[in-house]
Amino acid sequence: VKMVHNGIEYGLMQLLAETYDMLCRGLDMSEPELHEVFEDWNAGELSSYLVEITADIFAEVDGITGRPLIDMILDEARQKGTGKWTSQDAMELQIPTPTIDIGVVMRNMSAFKSERQDANRLYGDSIQKYTGDRSKFLEILHEAFYAAMITTYAQGFNLLQGASLAYKFDLNLATVARIWRGGCIIRSALLDEIRDVFTSDPKLPNMILDRDLGGKVISRTEALREVVSNAFSLGIPMPAMAATLSYLDAYRSVWLPANLIQAQRDYFGSHTYERIDERGLFHTEWHQSN
Amino acid sequence: VKMVHNGIEYGLMQLLAETYDMLCRGLDMSEPELHEVFEDWNAGELSSYLVEITADIFAEVDGITGRPLIDMILDEARQKGTGKWTSQDAMELQIPTPTIDIGVVMRNMSAFKSERQDANRLYGDSIQKYTGDRSKFLEILHEAFYAAMITTYAQGFNLLQGASLAYKFDLNLATVARIWRGGCIIRSALLDEIRDVFTSDPKLPNMILDRDLGGKVISRTEALREVVSNAFSLGIPMPAMAATLSYLDAYRSVWLPANLIQAQRDYFGSHTYERIDERGLFHTEWHQSN
Repeated sequence: VKMVHNGIEYGLMQLLAETYDMLCRGLDMSEPELHEVFEDWNAGELSSYLVEITADIFAEVDGITGRPLIDMILDEARQKGTGKWTSQDAMELQIPTPTIDIGVVMRNMSAFKSERQDANRLYGDSIQKYTGDRSKFLEILHEAFYAAMITTYAQGFNLLQGASLAYKFDLNLATVARIWRGGCIIRSALLDEIRDVFTSDPKLPNMILDRDLGGKVISRTEALREVVSNAFSLGIPMPAMAATLSYLDAYRSVWLPANLIQAQRDYFGSHTYERIDERGLFHTEWHQSN
Repeated sequence: VKMVHNGIEYGLMQLLAETYDMLCRGLDMSEPELHEVFEDWNAGELSSYLVEITADIFAEVDGITGRPLIDMILDEARQKGTGKWTSQDAMELQIPTPTIDIGVVMRNMSAFKSERQDANRLYGDSIQKYTGDRSKFLEILHEAFYAAMITTYAQGFNLLQGASLAYKFDLNLATVARIWRGGCIIRSALLDEIRDVFTSDPKLPNMILDRDLGGKVISRTEALREVVSNAFSLGIPMPAMAATLSYLDAYRSVWLPANLIQAQRDYFGSHTYERIDERGLFHTEWHQSN
């Protein structure tokens, strides 16, 4: 449970970092403006310890240079490994947690600073400024962040539910939400709603399937879509936001193109496939063009 | 080496599945048209075993129903676990391989078919048809696929280079490319170029840093951007394409917002941070607003 806590923490921290990047490089915001945005966000439905300390961080002044301290900190993230274990374990249990995985991946990417400098010297970067309506975009970012925040918890609780089944832990997810709400790095107002969801349906596999809480995510999907599409066109990497949106699009999709993967596996390795119209395992002697 | 081979295989198969999804649900292509697209692709710079068998697969007719066989195959992907090990090991070695990771994640997502059906019943999906110029978009898809294909191999070889260093394997990557070229599931014309890259620079950490091969990727980044932004606006999940683009955008970026992550880690856990203007580890007693 502690490990999954840290996985959710990695996901949320990456979402906050990407949002900061968009506000900073995309919208040219100064530290006092950044402080205000996150202070404002913390006063509403995003209320949480990580948003709160992010607001504090942008207000901190460096004692040595007198500049905002954040600007003096090296952009290479370290880790103690607990987020990584969550992603590794999720892969073991075959449960998708892409937002958490990207949190791990991007810490690793950040640490390759000298390679990034080499690539930048060779190719430059492709970053552009946002030129649309800033205050409207800020509202959209807020909506998108909320959807991504809920989805990150959803992936973590989905993993807990799966681990509980696989290892016969018999976890009470409402209790987990209550304990995390009390005092830990991912404490947030949202955990009250999550506790309610699992109190009324303890075996719910994924909280996206709760009509109230999941509905809040789905109604904000278009905001997420707008943020992600702006991020890609501006060249600002927001991979956790993007992975979250793909996760939601795929989760709502009755059909996914995995039939091709099964066909390929049967073609090259005779791994067999299932059919949509009949039970059982099937194998085809595929016609080869060459 | 065999494990990384399978990781690249997972990444490429997911890229092919996403491309199929875009052509099928986005562009309404029939199986004969799909066969033609991949046959055409296999005749050029994308020439590879996986593209070749994908073309064959779309031509296969189901002996029972007389319909295209691909339509009768259940869209739940299985795995033997070797792609998963690559992602887990990459996380262990702290080397980013997001395209490979997504290959694993999406197989897991596909297997949650009954949950996906539940979510779809609750919320519907958000899939729309592509309405632009089809033949132009096909060219752009081709370009994007090539960039993503090279980047998938780049992540795999980056992992091999890292593993070789960490475990003192002293791998000769040109030899690996030559052996894979000879006959294996990821054999492709591209491996000739990869062999040349590592013959002339055996210690190159990432082939994106090779001006010729990396330049081919960078010059196709705008095509990748167009594909990804269309996928997100149409609601068609292309997470491996998106993760590849984020990887490239981040890799070319001198600065990443990981300074915020370091500030947060120092704030809540006194994990210290580095500065951009001075060597050493620093800790701040952060001012708390509450």
